[in-house]
Amino acid sequence: MIKYPNKKQTFKKQTENHSKRGMSFEIMINETNDYYLGNSIAIIHKKPIPIQIVKVDYPSRSGAVIKEAYYKVPSTTDYNGLYKGKHIDFEAKETNNKTSFPLSNIHSHQIAHLISIEDHGGISFLLIFFKTLDEIYLLETKYLKDFVKRSIKGRKSITYDEIKEYGYKVKEGYAPRIEYLKVIDEIIKKGFQ
Amino acid sequence: MIKYPNKKQTFKKQTENHSKRGMSFEIMINETNDYYLGNSIAIIHKKPIPIQIVKVDYPSRSGAVIKEAYYKVPSTTDYNGLYKGKHIDFEAKETNNKTSFPLSNIHSHQIAHLISIEDHGGISFLLIFFKTLDEIYLLETKYLKDFVKRSIKGRKSITYDEIKEYGYKVKEGYAPRIEYLKVIDEIIKKGFQ
Repeated sequence: MIKYPNKKQTFKKQTENHSKRGMSFEIMINETNDYYLGNSIAIIHKKPIPIQIVKVDYPSRSGAVIKEAYYKVPSTTDYNGLYKGKHIDFEAKETNNKTSFPLSNIHSHQIAHLISIEDHGGISFLLIFFKTLDEIYLLETKYLKDFVKRSIKGRKSITYDEIKEYGYKVKEGYAPRIEYLKVIDEIIKKGFQ
Repeated sequence: MIKYPNKKQTFKKQTENHSKRGMSFEIMINETNDYYLGNSIAIIHKKPIPIQIVKVDYPSRSGAVIKEAYYKVPSTTDYNGLYKGKHIDFEAKETNNKTSFPLSNIHSHQIAHLISIEDHGGISFLLIFFKTLDEIYLLETKYLKDFVKRSIKGRKSITYDEIKEYGYKVKEGYAPRIEYLKVIDEIIKKGFQ
C-alpha cells in the first residue's frame, strides 16, 4: 500500500520552527516548495549536495555510518522540477551587496546548465535575494546570458538597477513564502512555449 | 568566462574504462545520460544520494572533510531532466529474478512521486533490468500504478510476461548504451501531451 507523505503537515511544522527574521534563503525556498508540493501545485525539489564517499563503517545491522567523505562541486543547479507540464530549473543566490550582484557567485558550469535547459525548452532562471534590502528577484536565463557575455570583457556583476529592469520582483508572503511561481505564470502568459 | 565542460570526452573515457560484462545498471544509465548530454540530445542527471551530515572537520584551508554522516531515504526518484521540452523522471531497478519484478523493490514514496509527475504533465516511468536475461524494459507509470493497486490485495509483483505486454523493450547499444529515449519518442508520437 502506498503511504503518501503528508506534506501539508510537514510544511506547517517547518513554518512554526522558523521565524522570518534571519531565516536563510534556502529554508525560505524549501518551505515554498513544500507548500507547492503539499497543495499539488508543483513538484520542485532541492537536489542533495553531491558528496564523494571514501569510507563507510557498518557498526550494526541497522545502518551504515559514513566516516570519510568530501564535498563535490555540483555540476547542475540546486533546484528543479515540474510545473504545469513545464520543466523548471533554477539556482538561488543571496548577497549582502545592495547595489549589484557579483557574477562570481555562480559557478560557470551552473550558468552553462541554465542556458542548456533554456535551449531544450525548459524554464530556467536565477533567484537573487538581496538580504540587506529584503528583496527577491527572478532573472530569466536569457538576460543572465547577456550579462555573462558582457562580463568576459566588461563589468563582472549585474547592477541592482539592471536586475530591477530585466528581472521580476518576487512577492513574499506567508504561504507560500516566496511566490516565484506567480512570476512563472506571467512568463508563460507572455508566450513561453 | 564560461568554461563549458567537454562532455564528449568524459563519455569516451568512461566507456573505455568499463567492459559490458558486469557493468552495473547505474553505470550503464550514467553513460547513456552522458552521451545524451554531450550530444545535446537531453539533459538528464542522476540525483546525488541524500546524506545527513553530522560532523565536518576543517583540517586545512583547502577543504572540509565529512567525518560523520548517514544515508537518508530518498524522497524522490534517482533520475530526472529534460528532453524535447518534456520533463522526464524515472527510477531504475535491477533484479536477478527471471519471471517477475517484485514491487517491494521500489519505495512507496517513489511510486507516489512517479504518479505525481504523471499527473503534472511530465513523463515518468520505471526502467527494469532483468540481469539474468540481459533485458531492459521501460514501464510507464500509468501501468505501474495499476500493478501497485493490484498489490494491495493481490500479487506483490509484476510478472515478466506482463512487463513484456505493457512495457517497451529498450534496445542496448554502444553509444548510447541504453536507448531509452527512442522509447520516449514512441510514447510522444502516440500522443503524449
